[in-house]
Amino acid sequence: MSDSAADNYYRVTNFSAGPATLPLEVLEQAQADLVDYQGSGMSVMEMSHRSPVYDAIHHGLMTSLRRLLHIGDDYDILLLQGGASLQFTMVPMNLLPKGRSADYVVTGAWAKKALAEAGKVGRARAAVSTANDNFQRLPAIEDFEVDPEATYLHLTTNNTIAGTQWHDFPTSEAPLVLDASSDILSRPMSFDGVGLVYAGAQKNLGPAGLTVVIVRRDLLDHVPEGLPTMLDYRTHASKDSLFNTPPCWSIYVAGLACAWLEKLGGLEAIATRNRNKADIIYSRLTGGFYRSPIDPASRSLMNVVFRLRDESLESEFLSEAAKAGLVNLKGHRSVGGIRASLYNALPVAGVKALADFMDDFEAHFA
Amino acid sequence: MSDSAADNYYRVTNFSAGPATLPLEVLEQAQADLVDYQGSGMSVMEMSHRSPVYDAIHHGLMTSLRRLLHIGDDYDILLLQGGASLQFTMVPMNLLPKGRSADYVVTGAWAKKALAEAGKVGRARAAVSTANDNFQRLPAIEDFEVDPEATYLHLTTNNTIAGTQWHDFPTSEAPLVLDASSDILSRPMSFDGVGLVYAGAQKNLGPAGLTVVIVRRDLLDHVPEGLPTMLDYRTHASKDSLFNTPPCWSIYVAGLACAWLEKLGGLEAIATRNRNKADIIYSRLTGGFYRSPIDPASRSLMNVVFRLRDESLESEFLSEAAKAGLVNLKGHRSVGGIRASLYNALPVAGVKALADFMDDFEAHFA
Repeated sequence: MSDSAADNYYRVTNFSAGPATLPLEVLEQAQADLVDYQGSGMSVMEMSHRSPVYDAIHHGLMTSLRRLLHIGDDYDILLLQGGASLQFTMVPMNLLPKGRSADYVVTGAWAKKALAEAGKVGRARAAVSTANDNFQRLPAIEDFEVDPEATYLHLTTNNTIAGTQWHDFPTSEAPLVLDASSDILSRPMSFDGVGLVYAGAQKNLGPAGLTVVIVRRDLLDHVPEGLPTMLDYRTHASKDSLFNTPPCWSIYVAGLACAWLEKLGGLEAIATRNRNKADIIYSRLTGGFYRSPIDPASRSLMNVVFRLRDESLESEFLSEAAKAGLVNLKGHRSVGGIRASLYNALPVAGVKALADFMDDFEAHFA
Repeated sequence: MSDSAADNYYRVTNFSAGPATLPLEVLEQAQADLVDYQGSGMSVMEMSHRSPVYDAIHHGLMTSLRRLLHIGDDYDILLLQGGASLQFTMVPMNLLPKGRSADYVVTGAWAKKALAEAGKVGRARAAVSTANDNFQRLPAIEDFEVDPEATYLHLTTNNTIAGTQWHDFPTSEAPLVLDASSDILSRPMSFDGVGLVYAGAQKNLGPAGLTVVIVRRDLLDHVPEGLPTMLDYRTHASKDSLFNTPPCWSIYVAGLACAWLEKLGGLEAIATRNRNKADIIYSRLTGGFYRSPIDPASRSLMNVVFRLRDESLESEFLSEAAKAGLVNLKGHRSVGGIRASLYNALPVAGVKALADFMDDFEAHFA
C-alpha cells in the first residue's frame, strides 16, 4: 500500500491526523541504521548531543529545512520540544510585551486554544472567528480588521479538525505568526510578512517529540528579559538548539523525511502530488452519496472531511474500510463523520485504494 | 562488547554521560518492530496517540515505572517533554507559591541552574553549596539547615559532571524534590518524604525527548491558578499525559528498557550490578597511576570521574581508548580528566574492557 516496495512487512494505509504515516523508505532507513548508525558503533538514540556525528544530523535537518522552504538568513530555525501546545504559550511570552496586544484569527479548536493561552500571558483578541459557522469556512480577508497596533497576527494555516486550509494568507502590518503544524512542507510558502512559524513535527515532518520554530531574527531583539531560560527563544537561537539535550531521534527521522522530500523534487513537486491526492477524494464529494460540509474555497488538501448522505452508514463505512486496510478514517470526536488525512507521506496508491473503496461502498448501498 | 550476542553489528562501548548507551536487546527489539509494530501495520512513530495500540505502550511504561520503583497510588506519573531543564522552571511554577520560599542543595552545575530558574519564579535560596570544594564532595547532612518554612528542598541525586551521588537523602520537614535524571532506576529508592522526582530519560531510562515526573498528588492541590496549560502539572496528571501528543517513540523505547530491567531482576539486581561495575574502576583509582578527585563517601556509581597522575597523558589515554572501541570517556569540559559513565545499560563486559585497558596503559607508561 506504499509507493515503494513493501513485500516484507504488513502495512496498512494510515489516514491518521497525527501522528501520521511516514514514508516507507524513511522507516526502512531508520531501521537499517538503528543499532549501528553508519558505522559509528551506536544508535542515534545513544549519541552524545555534543558529538560530531550527531552534530551532522542536527545541522543537517536545519539545512534541509532552510533549502526546502527557502528560508533566508534573517530567520533562525529552532528545534524544540513540547508541541504546538507549548508554542501557544511561548509565542506570547516572547513576542507579546506588556502594554501591547496580539490578534488571533479563530478558525478552529487549535486557534481557540492558542488565543486562550495568549490571554494568560498578555492582551490578545480574536480579530475574527468562524465559530458560528462551525469553522466550516475560513473568513474572507475583507471580513475582519486587524488591529493596526497589533504586535502580531496569529493564524492556523490548516485546521485538522474542521478540514479547512488557508490557500493565501491575509496581509497585515503586523508580522504573521503561523501555526503550520499540519501543513508545513506540504507546499511552497512565502515568508513575506511572516514573523514566526511553528509546527509540531508529527504530521508532515517526522515523529512526535519535535517542534520546529522559524523566527525572524529581529523579533528576538524585543523579547522581554527575565523569561525562564527554556521558554526564551533566544536561549535556543544562540545555541543552535543545543542548549540542552534535543529530541535527537525525532530530529534524525525528520531529517530523513526531508531528504526523501528533496529527492521527490521538493515542495513544488509535493504540492502537485498533494493536490492530486486531495482531488481524487474531493471529486467524489458531489453531494450525492458523499458530501463535503466545507466551503469549497476553504477546503484543506491535508484533511479531507466528508459525510455520507445517510450518516447512519458511516460506522459501517469505517469498519469496512478498516477491514480493507484503510485505517484511522474516523472524523474528530467533536465533529464526527469521516476524515482522510493525506499528508505528504500518504502514498498516492493509498488514496486510490480509498477512492476505489468509496466507489464500491456507494455501489453496494446506493 | 555487549552482554548479549552482537555479531551482526559494529558496536563500541559507549561511556557517554547522556544520551547514553541502551541495552542491545532493546535496540534490536525496536529495530524488529520499527516498520510494523507487532502486526499493527504501522510504526510506533506513525500511531495516533489516541489509538488502543499506542495506549497500551503509554500506560505500559507507567505501569512498569510504578512496579519497578514501588510507586504508591498517592503519586502521579507524568510523561513530559523538555528535559530536566524545563523542570527547573515547572517545579517552582507549580510548587512554589507567592510568599513562600524553596531551599536548594547546590552540589553541581545542574543544581545551580535549577536554583537560578527557581529564582526567576519566586523566592529560592541555597541551603548549602559545595562550590568552594569544586563540588567534589557532597555536604554532610549536619552541614546545612533547611529553612523550616521551606515549601520544598531540592536535591540533585547524582551529579554527572563532578561525579558525586547521594547514597542517603537528607530528611527534612519540607518535601524533597529530586532531580534524578542521572540515576533514576539505577537502585531502589524510598519515597518517604519525597514530594516530586523528575528525570530526563536519556541516561538510565531511554532516548532523549522524554521527561518523567513523579509527583505526590496532594501537592497538586496547591498549584497556583492561571499557569500556562502546558506548564501546569495538573493538565498532564488529569489527562494521563495525553493532553497533547506525547513523545511516543521515546516512551516506547523507555518501556522496552523497563521491561529489560524487570527481566534482569529489577532495581535490587541492577543496583548490585551497578555497584560491581563501579567498583571495578574505583579499585584502580588508588592514587598511584590513577586517582579519584572525589571524596570517597560522595562518589557516584554512575559517573566515575578520575585523573591520571600525569595529566599530560590524559589525551593519549582518551585517543588510545577510542581506538580500542572505548569511547566518550572525556571528562566534562568544565572539569577535564576522564569520566566513565556506567549507567544501567553499560555492559559489565565493557567495564572489564576499560579496566583491562587501564591496566595495559598503566603498564606501558608506569
